[in-house]
Amino acid sequence: MNPDIVKERQNATFDVEKLTNILDGGPQKTKRRREIESLVLSDQEFQEEDPNFLSRSERYDQAVRKSAHMILKLREYGIADPEEIYCYKNCVHPNRPEPLDLHLGMFLPTLLNQATPEQMDRFFMPAWNLEIIGTYAQTEMGHGTHLRGLETTATYDPATQEFVLNSPTVSSIKWWPGGLGKTSNHAIVLAQLYTQGNFHGLHAFIVPIRDTNTHIPLPGIVVGDIGPKFGFNEVDNGFLKLDNVRIPRENMLMKYAKVEPDGTYVKPPSSKLTYGTMVFIRSMIVGVSAQTLAKSCTIAIRYSAVRRQSEIRPGEPEPQILDYQTQQYKLFPLLAMAYAFQFVGQYISETYHRISEDINHGDFNELPELHALSAGLKAFTTWAVNGGIEVCRMSCGGHGYSRSSALPDLYVEFTPTCTYEGENTVMMLQTARYLVKSYRQAREGQRLSGIVSYLNEGDHRRVQPQPVAARPTVVDINDLASLVDVYKLRAAILVELAAKSIQQELQRRKSQEDAWNNSAIDLVRASDAHCHYVVVKLFTDKLGEIGDTAVHSVLSTLALLYALHGITENSGDFLQAGLLTVPQVLQISVRIKELLSQLRPNAVPLVDAFDFHDKKLNSVLGRYDGNVYENMFEWARRSPLNATEVHESFHKYLKPLRSKL
Amino acid sequence: MNPDIVKERQNATFDVEKLTNILDGGPQKTKRRREIESLVLSDQEFQEEDPNFLSRSERYDQAVRKSAHMILKLREYGIADPEEIYCYKNCVHPNRPEPLDLHLGMFLPTLLNQATPEQMDRFFMPAWNLEIIGTYAQTEMGHGTHLRGLETTATYDPATQEFVLNSPTVSSIKWWPGGLGKTSNHAIVLAQLYTQGNFHGLHAFIVPIRDTNTHIPLPGIVVGDIGPKFGFNEVDNGFLKLDNVRIPRENMLMKYAKVEPDGTYVKPPSSKLTYGTMVFIRSMIVGVSAQTLAKSCTIAIRYSAVRRQSEIRPGEPEPQILDYQTQQYKLFPLLAMAYAFQFVGQYISETYHRISEDINHGDFNELPELHALSAGLKAFTTWAVNGGIEVCRMSCGGHGYSRSSALPDLYVEFTPTCTYEGENTVMMLQTARYLVKSYRQAREGQRLSGIVSYLNEGDHRRVQPQPVAARPTVVDINDLASLVDVYKLRAAILVELAAKSIQQELQRRKSQEDAWNNSAIDLVRASDAHCHYVVVKLFTDKLGEIGDTAVHSVLSTLALLYALHGITENSGDFLQAGLLTVPQVLQISVRIKELLSQLRPNAVPLVDAFDFHDKKLNSVLGRYDGNVYENMFEWARRSPLNATEVHESFHKYLKPLRSKL
Repeated sequence: MNPDIVKERQNATFDVEKLTNILDGGPQKTKRRREIESLVLSDQEFQEEDPNFLSRSERYDQAVRKSAHMILKLREYGIADPEEIYCYKNCVHPNRPEPLDLHLGMFLPTLLNQATPEQMDRFFMPAWNLEIIGTYAQTEMGHGTHLRGLETTATYDPATQEFVLNSPTVSSIKWWPGGLGKTSNHAIVLAQLYTQGNFHGLHAFIVPIRDTNTHIPLPGIVVGDIGPKFGFNEVDNGFLKLDNVRIPRENMLMKYAKVEPDGTYVKPPSSKLTYGTMVFIRSMIVGVSAQTLAKSCTIAIRYSAVRRQSEIRPGEPEPQILDYQTQQYKLFPLLAMAYAFQFVGQYISETYHRISEDINHGDFNELPELHALSAGLKAFTTWAVNGGIEVCRMSCGGHGYSRSSALPDLYVEFTPTCTYEGENTVMMLQTARYLVKSYRQAREGQRLSGIVSYLNEGDHRRVQPQPVAARPTVVDINDLASLVDVYKLRAAILVELAAKSIQQELQRRKSQEDAWNNSAIDLVRASDAHCHYVVVKLFTDKLGEIGDTAVHSVLSTLALLYALHGITENSGDFLQAGLLTVPQVLQISVRIKELLSQLRPNAVPLVDAFDFHDKKLNSVLGRYDGNVYENMFEWARRSPLNATEVHESFHKYLKPLRSKL
Repeated sequence: MNPDIVKERQNATFDVEKLTNILDGGPQKTKRRREIESLVLSDQEFQEEDPNFLSRSERYDQAVRKSAHMILKLREYGIADPEEIYCYKNCVHPNRPEPLDLHLGMFLPTLLNQATPEQMDRFFMPAWNLEIIGTYAQTEMGHGTHLRGLETTATYDPATQEFVLNSPTVSSIKWWPGGLGKTSNHAIVLAQLYTQGNFHGLHAFIVPIRDTNTHIPLPGIVVGDIGPKFGFNEVDNGFLKLDNVRIPRENMLMKYAKVEPDGTYVKPPSSKLTYGTMVFIRSMIVGVSAQTLAKSCTIAIRYSAVRRQSEIRPGEPEPQILDYQTQQYKLFPLLAMAYAFQFVGQYISETYHRISEDINHGDFNELPELHALSAGLKAFTTWAVNGGIEVCRMSCGGHGYSRSSALPDLYVEFTPTCTYEGENTVMMLQTARYLVKSYRQAREGQRLSGIVSYLNEGDHRRVQPQPVAARPTVVDINDLASLVDVYKLRAAILVELAAKSIQQELQRRKSQEDAWNNSAIDLVRASDAHCHYVVVKLFTDKLGEIGDTAVHSVLSTLALLYALHGITENSGDFLQAGLLTVPQVLQISVRIKELLSQLRPNAVPLVDAFDFHDKKLNSVLGRYDGNVYENMFEWARRSPLNATEVHESFHKYLKPLRSKL
């Protein structure tokens, strides 16, 4: 054990295990998580070569091998709870998606939600037993966000009672679905339905794409891998071109909408039925964001404790880089953010579970708010973490660029969350739409409830962008409740600003749509402020649940740092709105420095509390024992370029060159 | 040609070729650049497989092959001017470093600068003819920024007149030098010199590491590749462990410092002699930043012109995504930044060349300012571009994640500039040191000249953080000169704030060093503001040189956007200092929206003016003809995973699994 990191742990002012329990949701959950993790970590079949040493094809091969074994073991252990499956999978494929993700996470659940009993009989058990391996093919090469723009067609032919599926253009080729390229033999294809000469919009169809026995693509099918990406090397994201592919009528998922044998179309009872899944996945992503930032902080902070560099005082030994104020200023606000997002993730997942019963019974009352919240928070957290991982990586100096640090992989596997399951800017605008609608309702005299109730007519309406001097300031920068209020007022003002921008555009005779587009910058800004308020609020609320004094104290410091750092990063907003005075902003800068010093002794214990097993973290820099350099050397020596002492290119190119010069 | 992109070009309000000439530094330079590029592009020997389809070893092999051919052709064409060599190389290895970079860019130049005539005779021609392939081995596993911390030792043995080189610890292993792992047979090793029992600090030694004939590592040498990284796949960054390696006394580079045969140490005449190279390389990086951002903008803006998605007005065709205000707000400020940094790069390179004559004659008068400026601007531009590339990538939706977009590669090859040749935070603090020193000199009554003259006692000294209402505002937000002034005042105030923070710490009886460390956040902020001011100023100055009215007009719009966008991003600073009023900040937001609309018709022509050949850009999304989708499909089909219809993993793992479930 590196002596520096031992000393760090001795300095903890709180019980690390207690904090771990809070993060897990209770001691029982910590225990069960560790049990599941040890099932994986003790299983020799999951041993792997570092993927960074393998070719793309070898990486895919290794991932398929592990996923196959995973399926087997999950059955054997009887692990069936989705959270536990997720935990197991995350340990089998640490930090990485895998080829069966869409089979397990989209194909099977979509069958469960949208298949008729007859379809369940035909498809579910074969899919459960991996005779059918499926994916979910929605996005096309030229179409992502805008579902109505999808071009794939499914035309019903009553003569044979079949649907005929087609990719009419290059841009209509299905593109990106995970597992589509090489793994799946079936796909749930989203296509525009035509029957009896009428157009009925997007519906889902089960399309066999490869022979279940030989795995060779079926006639009319052109399928393959879309090529190397930024990350996702284990996944065969694929393309699918359909040329007059015929499937039986019964392969349209018909639990809700139907096409009768004669081609008569029957509408679904509600359009909100598939809405819940989307909300669920976005909520999950908030949790993933928190976990990823927690991993990045663990690596950067542990390494900063063992890394000694330069000098603060001449003649003294090189200090730990964690003692540099600039290093603390990079990492501690991110550490605070990781905690904040963990608690937001807990909240949103609990909320989803609380109201999902209602949703299942057709009560969609609370769904719009959760939908708006999950969209905005998905964007807010993924953007913040996306940047945060890179700050962590760059805080590790040169070694952050080495794949052995795990930070490059954390980044490339995470960054797609900014785009998939709802492109972030689009997500922010969805939340903004809800905020502006709520704002207008409040203006029309409706009483808002829930998280947007701050938009009700009230005190804040008197707050306007104005010189600071004009209004008295009552904010206490050391009081979290007071800071929550300030964030709330900022959000209220920015929502109002965006709403007014739309109003002004309309007064200039712009159409509703152009007015919206011409206010989009303001709308995104309003959403961002709303989400920021929610995060500060939820972190503060969480403190109320913490009984242990020592843990409460350190989490309060983190919450305060999160709130104050957010203010300095956006001080223009707060000054502009007259919510804070110039002396207060200066005071906040000073206070932040104090909080950095205050957190310094607890920095390593705070990342220890995330409790990532070394094998799950998979980072030479982030090792629990701090023995970085010897392990980095050992890792490097295993690199494939070192398999031979002399690379063949010397004999092929360099040596022959001499005689030519 | 995609009709959308044709139309974009018809809308240009200026002559693209004229702007290209300005960027190149004149029509003659444009002509010569294109000549050199066509030498490469027409050369069949430079044909390559997309590196993204290759293994690491194959990538390295291909790069060595191309570099060897490049050396041959440069000799054949007699291309010897460093700028022209750089241009040729950039076209041979577009967006990518290569294995001989350090041989050409560090080993040969270091010989030229630091070798004695006798050493030149012994080493230069063999190195020129690639019998000797060299690298420059400075950083160690545990030591980067802090040169005094390097552990490698060179101990003089007068008995044999040899130096004995050693890596005494794991952390002392040389780590990271490009070309060290597999390519080089010699290294210039930086080591701590001991002779006659005395320590004399860091010196450079030429160490043979591999047999020049067999390429096998020599006795006492452990050398290899440090393993896969984030990017730099073509380069064999290496490690080197020295175990009692003996080299002749004459292998120490002795143009300046010397060790006599008896072991007597002779000091170098000046410590500033190696200073110039560092400044030169950092200046170059500013230019690289500009080029990389220009490439990223070219890809994102061209793709945004051909990509149609969603709807602004119901019933109308899907709009080009470049028509969304949020897309413009992401990309146009970056486009403006790319132009700004191009002109900063020109300025700093011209300044370097202007004063390098003085430096060669031992006149170091202007060097400290250039040193401070190049350090800060290196950090300022690389950080901004690092984030900017990712904004460009994410503005391309899903396809930005495909390696075919080139954006992932642009990012991973660029991001190390934030760390190498001076870690960015350290760079910012170096600039801050100069600023604080200048500030103190001014306070002591000295008259400053040059770019820091704004720190002279003068009007700004009356400007203090204070309520806006307290001072009259004279800023014209449409006048660049006025905005330059505002940036200047912001910098002056933040330098003063940092200096005062140090003062306050000292008054609290902190040591000079602790006071510095406890003010580091403020110091970085001051440097950042200083650099920002310099960039706005240089962009504005450049406009004065532009004769063509149409080009002047569009560049003025870009400069205004750059300046105003920078203000909104840092509005807290400007409000806090009372430099702008709240209504002005609101006005600036409105003005930015107008500028986005104004730039919209010229967006594609403005990236065309960067004049990147398609083969140099190497991006399916950024193609000049806009034919994105058909080419993306073609690219994907060539992906190695598509070499077979059925991947072997199906037969190995997935099919056998069925019988077990």
